Amino acid sequence: MEMHYNRIAGDDVGRIEALSDGIFAFAATVLVLDFHTPEVSEIHTEAQLLAALAASVPRLLPWLLSMLTLGMFWVGQQTGLNQLERSNRDLTWLHLVFIAVITVLPFSTRLLADFFTYRTAFMIYWANIFLTGAALYATWAYAERARLIREDAHGEVSRAIRRRIVIAQSLYAVGAVVGVFDVTLGIVLFILIQLNYAVAPRLPVLSRL
Amino acid sequence: MEMHYNRIAGDDVGRIEALSDGIFAFAATVLVLDFHTPEVSEIHTEAQLLAALAASVPRLLPWLLSMLTLGMFWVGQQTGLNQLERSNRDLTWLHLVFIAVITVLPFSTRLLADFFTYRTAFMIYWANIFLTGAALYATWAYAERARLIREDAHGEVSRAIRRRIVIAQSLYAVGAVVGVFDVTLGIVLFILIQLNYAVAPRLPVLSRL
Amino acid sequence: MEMHYNRIAGDDVGRIEALSDGIFAFAATVLVLDFHTPEVSEIHTEAQLLAALAASVPRLLPWLLSMLTLGMFWVGQQTGLNQLERSNRDLTWLHLVFIAVITVLPFSTRLLADFFTYRTAFMIYWANIFLTGAALYATWAYAERARLIREDAHGEVSRAIRRRIVIAQSLYAVGAVVGVFDVTLGIVLFILIQLNYAVAPRLPVLSRL
Amino acid sequence: MEMHYNRIAGDDVGRIEALSDGIFAFAATVLVLDFHTPEVSEIHTEAQLLAALAASVPRLLPWLLSMLTLGMFWVGQQTGLNQLERSNRDLTWLHLVFIAVITVLPFSTRLLADFFTYRTAFMIYWANIFLTGAALYATWAYAERARLIREDAHGEVSRAIRRRIVIAQSLYAVGAVVGVFDVTLGIVLFILIQLNYAVAPRLPVLSRL
Repeated sequence: MEMHYNRIAGDDVGRIEALSDGIFAFAATVLVLDFHTPEVSEIHTEAQLLAALAASVPRLLPWLLSMLTLGMFWVGQQTGLNQLERSNRDLTWLHLVFIAVITVLPFSTRLLADFFTYRTAFMIYWANIFLTGAALYATWAYAERARLIREDAHGEVSRAIRRRIVIAQSLYAVGAVVGVFDVTLGIVLFILIQLNYAVAPRLPVLSRL
Repeated sequence: MEMHYNRIAGDDVGRIEALSDGIFAFAATVLVLDFHTPEVSEIHTEAQLLAALAASVPRLLPWLLSMLTLGMFWVGQQTGLNQLERSNRDLTWLHLVFIAVITVLPFSTRLLADFFTYRTAFMIYWANIFLTGAALYATWAYAERARLIREDAHGEVSRAIRRRIVIAQSLYAVGAVVGVFDVTLGIVLFILIQLNYAVAPRLPVLSRL
Repeated sequence: MEMHYNRIAGDDVGRIEALSDGIFAFAATVLVLDFHTPEVSEIHTEAQLLAALAASVPRLLPWLLSMLTLGMFWVGQQTGLNQLERSNRDLTWLHLVFIAVITVLPFSTRLLADFFTYRTAFMIYWANIFLTGAALYATWAYAERARLIREDAHGEVSRAIRRRIVIAQSLYAVGAVVGVFDVTLGIVLFILIQLNYAVAPRLPVLSRL
Repeated sequence: MEMHYNRIAGDDVGRIEALSDGIFAFAATVLVLDFHTPEVSEIHTEAQLLAALAASVPRLLPWLLSMLTLGMFWVGQQTGLNQLERSNRDLTWLHLVFIAVITVLPFSTRLLADFFTYRTAFMIYWANIFLTGAALYATWAYAERARLIREDAHGEVSRAIRRRIVIAQSLYAVGAVVGVFDVTLGIVLFILIQLNYAVAPRLPVLSRL
């Protein structure tokens, strides 16, 4: 009987981590490439330079939003990967889907920064976050079903991981609905949601989210 | 007698993996840089923004194609590397050739996206896939011949790896011939071939490929 | 009682290192992208090419400055990480802040290169260095307080790490004050400070800094 | 007595490797970014597309040259790092110098591709190779002097590593002198030298180089 190629393919968790670290590192650096320095020929005084830079300040909001998004999903993916006993090729491909959605984030961010008050740009950004969360959830659900996670990660740990993704995505969905009516308010809500997860305040209510 | 430099050069599998992860991560991120946001000065309504974005939708097809190509070859290279006992400088250079062909993929992708209906662009894209597959096959054939692979990877495992590359490249060749007559159909065939390998359906016929 | 997600999130020092290496590598490469080759259509003789290249020579100073900055903070972060027993999600997020400030450095560098004699550009560059140092100090102060560092890294090692950051930032602050009056002199001072740390001369006075 | 910060800084060989892999990966990918696809608006037939692509073919020569340069120095650095017992901060900084010169290679390559027949571009390219070789030699000479290499790497191994760098740089110097009189011939010589090291033919004379 012939050996099946898929039995030996893609079983290395460390490679998924290394590829992901590269993807997140480039995505974060690419975000900053959208901050253009003012045209040298148009600037003649310190005041003009300050004014030109001040005009770019609103771009800091989408940038901050995306840095937090990247950080949140990088930590989230890591938490799941740390519970793995091993990988297989199906799980590897699910992580490649997760990674592929992450590579799109610099585009969504640029779109949001360029068209800050446009609902279309905001909804595409939200779709990017939603798809990333859905892909991450899929990696975990599959890993558990295929018995790729450590014995002690079943039960409580698994429930904590699933709950985290579902609650975070529910909060984003609320922010998205608000954003349909007022884009700026939607973005501010997104940032607050993420700051909550990043800072993880020790307030009893918020830290349960 | 003098020591030979080549006896101590390039024997580290982990470094090949790390360099490759960087290459694949950067290539995947570069692919998205080809999605340009619409010119701010030309957009005044939500409808215009939607229309401008819709005009870019056909670029999603080459992007998807190349993400699948990258994923397939990343998994393929990993599968081979995992069977290695050690490397040597010749095998390292063969992997550098493989890596070099991968770095060209963003260029081939952009060409295909810009000149979607042109046979020239399609054939260059196919040549890129073919050369990548040929380089990958060479790394394995050499590794086996130079006895760099693990004892238990000879025989069945080796045949599975060779078979996988040869069958995949044969399918691409069929797609390439079809593409000479109808480029769009050729691209769709390529994507179907890759989706088959990525999704690895449990259908008896397809999963034997 | 429910398990708390944050108890299992982000405890991997190796991932922080890998992500940081990607960030620093990309930042260093992006710095060179600001060196533009002369327009082919405008160059017709060797003398013209030399003249065009000579016009770019002043950009070497900000480039050198930023390469040294990257090197210094890469070594500095590494020194701290090497003392860690483990990480947790709060420390991971502090390192993400450190990383985020590093990704901004190519922008600050381009600004300084484009507006070499402008106080505004210089102060933004200094702010970037200051924020990086502050973030690095925060990672260490938190790691020590949260008992994440190795037993033997308390006391002397910890004091050496804190002293290094505080003294370096004090020297930069002096350079910043000088730069308010004379930007070029401020940049030269910055480079001298960093060369001192990079070369680490064995002069009794300087090597104590 | 106070602890000296430099005693605990930068002693991690694995980090140097990881940072270098990132640098080489980006440099290799950036090289391909110089291949521009033809302007869509100017191409209307397959023949025009082929003609436009053919016009870029000469750029393949500098590209091949630089891919070989990157490969050679990546293998060369790896060979040295593999002999290390440990690192220290001085050796780390020497490797950062080596890395810094590598990041300049995409610029030198673009210059050579844009100004193919110009002696200035060729000499800058050669200077880049020379400085990279000199930095690599410095890392090894220092590592041996500071007793950072493994016991068994003294003597024969060390001589093989030094000889390799000195002979390679001597050959490049010959190519550089030839290039002063005929740039194209100089480039061809460079490529032949590197192909010799990459392919490492088993001819008695060449393989001793």
